[in-house]
Amino acid sequence: MGYQEMNIEGRNAVIEAFRSGKTVDKLYILDGCQDGPVMTIKREAKKHDTMVKYVTKERLDQMSQTGKHQGVIAVIAAYDYAEVEDILQKARDKGEAPFIFLLDNIEDPHNLGAIIRTANLAGAHGVIIPKNRAVGLTATVARTSAGALNYTPVAKVTNLSKTIEELKKEGMWFVCADMGGTSMYQLDLKGPIGLVIGNEGDGVSRLVREKCDFIASIPMKGDIDSLNASVAAGVLAYEIVRQRG
Amino acid sequence: MGYQEMNIEGRNAVIEAFRSGKTVDKLYILDGCQDGPVMTIKREAKKHDTMVKYVTKERLDQMSQTGKHQGVIAVIAAYDYAEVEDILQKARDKGEAPFIFLLDNIEDPHNLGAIIRTANLAGAHGVIIPKNRAVGLTATVARTSAGALNYTPVAKVTNLSKTIEELKKEGMWFVCADMGGTSMYQLDLKGPIGLVIGNEGDGVSRLVREKCDFIASIPMKGDIDSLNASVAAGVLAYEIVRQRG
Repeated sequence: MGYQEMNIEGRNAVIEAFRSGKTVDKLYILDGCQDGPVMTIKREAKKHDTMVKYVTKERLDQMSQTGKHQGVIAVIAAYDYAEVEDILQKARDKGEAPFIFLLDNIEDPHNLGAIIRTANLAGAHGVIIPKNRAVGLTATVARTSAGALNYTPVAKVTNLSKTIEELKKEGMWFVCADMGGTSMYQLDLKGPIGLVIGNEGDGVSRLVREKCDFIASIPMKGDIDSLNASVAAGVLAYEIVRQRG
Repeated sequence: MGYQEMNIEGRNAVIEAFRSGKTVDKLYILDGCQDGPVMTIKREAKKHDTMVKYVTKERLDQMSQTGKHQGVIAVIAAYDYAEVEDILQKARDKGEAPFIFLLDNIEDPHNLGAIIRTANLAGAHGVIIPKNRAVGLTATVARTSAGALNYTPVAKVTNLSKTIEELKKEGMWFVCADMGGTSMYQLDLKGPIGLVIGNEGDGVSRLVREKCDFIASIPMKGDIDSLNASVAAGVLAYEIVRQRG
C-alpha cells in the first residue's frame, strides 16, 4: 500500500522531526517528565496541534523499537498528506464540480479508513481532516481504506471552519450530517459540494455546523440514536452520487 | 445492553451445553486432542454447525476463567436468538411489508454490529445470519450495534438459501449486493424485500446468489474494488428506504 508508520524516538530526534516539518500523528511522552528538552517538544506539539498522550515508562518501553526513547516517542505517517489545493486541482483535471469529504474529528481509525474508501468509490476528489484531536493516517487507517489511500488525497488542516470559509470563496457549498436537519432526500445535493461528517459521539461541532449551508438528516426509523459514522458517510455520499448521476 | 458472553469450560459442561440446546457461538479445542469426550464434542459441533477453532494449550489457559478447561472452551451468547417467524410477525404487527437483512457470512464483529445498527435505523424487521462460519452475536457485536441488538431480532439459520426459498413462499423477494448487477437506482426495491449482504472478501456465495431475484450494484466511481461490507449494507438499505418512502 506504499504506506508505513514510523516511530521517531529520543528527544533530539523528535525535536528535529517537528522542525523539519514532518507530520507527527501522535506523540507519547513519559508522564510527569518536565525537563527542558521535553518542554521544548511539548511547545512544538502545541504549535503543530499534535495529539499528545502521557504514558508510563512500561508503555514506552513496550512501544520502543530502539530501546532508547528517552521518554518520548513520536509516531510519523510516512504517507504524504495532500494540500487542499491538490484536491481542487484533481476536480479540475477531471472536469468535475468538486466533491470533498470533511471529517470533523473522526476518532476511530476503522471509521476513517472506511470513509476514505467510501470517498474513493463515491467519486469524491479528496478528504479533509483536522490536525487537532482527530485520528491521523495510521497503519490501521491505511489497511481499512483497502488501498483508497493511494488514490484519494487526504489533506490535514488546522481549522476546519476556516477551510470551509475559504472553499466557499471557490464556489463550494457545504452540507453536514446531523439530526434535526432536512431529510437528505429533500435537499438539492448537486454542484460543488463539501460533505461534513461529525465525530462518532458528539456529531458535528458547533463552529463547523454554523458554517454549513444545509443540515441533512438521514431518516431514522428505528429505536436507537444514530448510524455508525462510516455508514452515515456512505449513505449521504451515495445520495449525493444519485442526485449527481 | 442486556447481553453477556459466557465461557463454558470443561468436557462435560460443553457436551451438556450442546445437548440442552444452547447456542454455542464458538468452540475452542486443544489442537491434537482426539480422545472420546472430545470426539463427542466435535460431533455435536458438526451437528450444530458450530465454528471450531483448534488452539494451543497456552491460548486456552489464557482464555480460561475457571482454570479447568480440560482442553475445551465453548463461547455462548447469553443473547437470545430469534426465530425467522418472530421477524415476520414483527412486520405483521407493524402492518408493514417485511424488510429483512440476510447476511451471507459476515466475519468481522464490527461489521455485524454496524449492520444490525443500520437494520434497526432503516426500519428493517430483523436480521438473519447463518450458523456456519459467520460470526455470531459476540460482545463486540453487541457493543458496535449501539443498542440495536435489544430491539432488532436476529435469527440464526442452518441454510441461508433454504431460508430464502421458504421466505419466497411468503411472498418475499430477494436482492443481493454484488458487482456486475443492475444499478440499485434502476431497480424497483419496494414491497416485501430481503436484502442479502455477502462476505467481506468473497461477496455473496454462489448458492445464495442463485436464489436472489435481482443483483443490485452500487455505482463505483473510484479506483478500488468495493465498499466496506457495513457501508455497502447501509447504502443499499437506504436506497430501499428512499424507494419505500
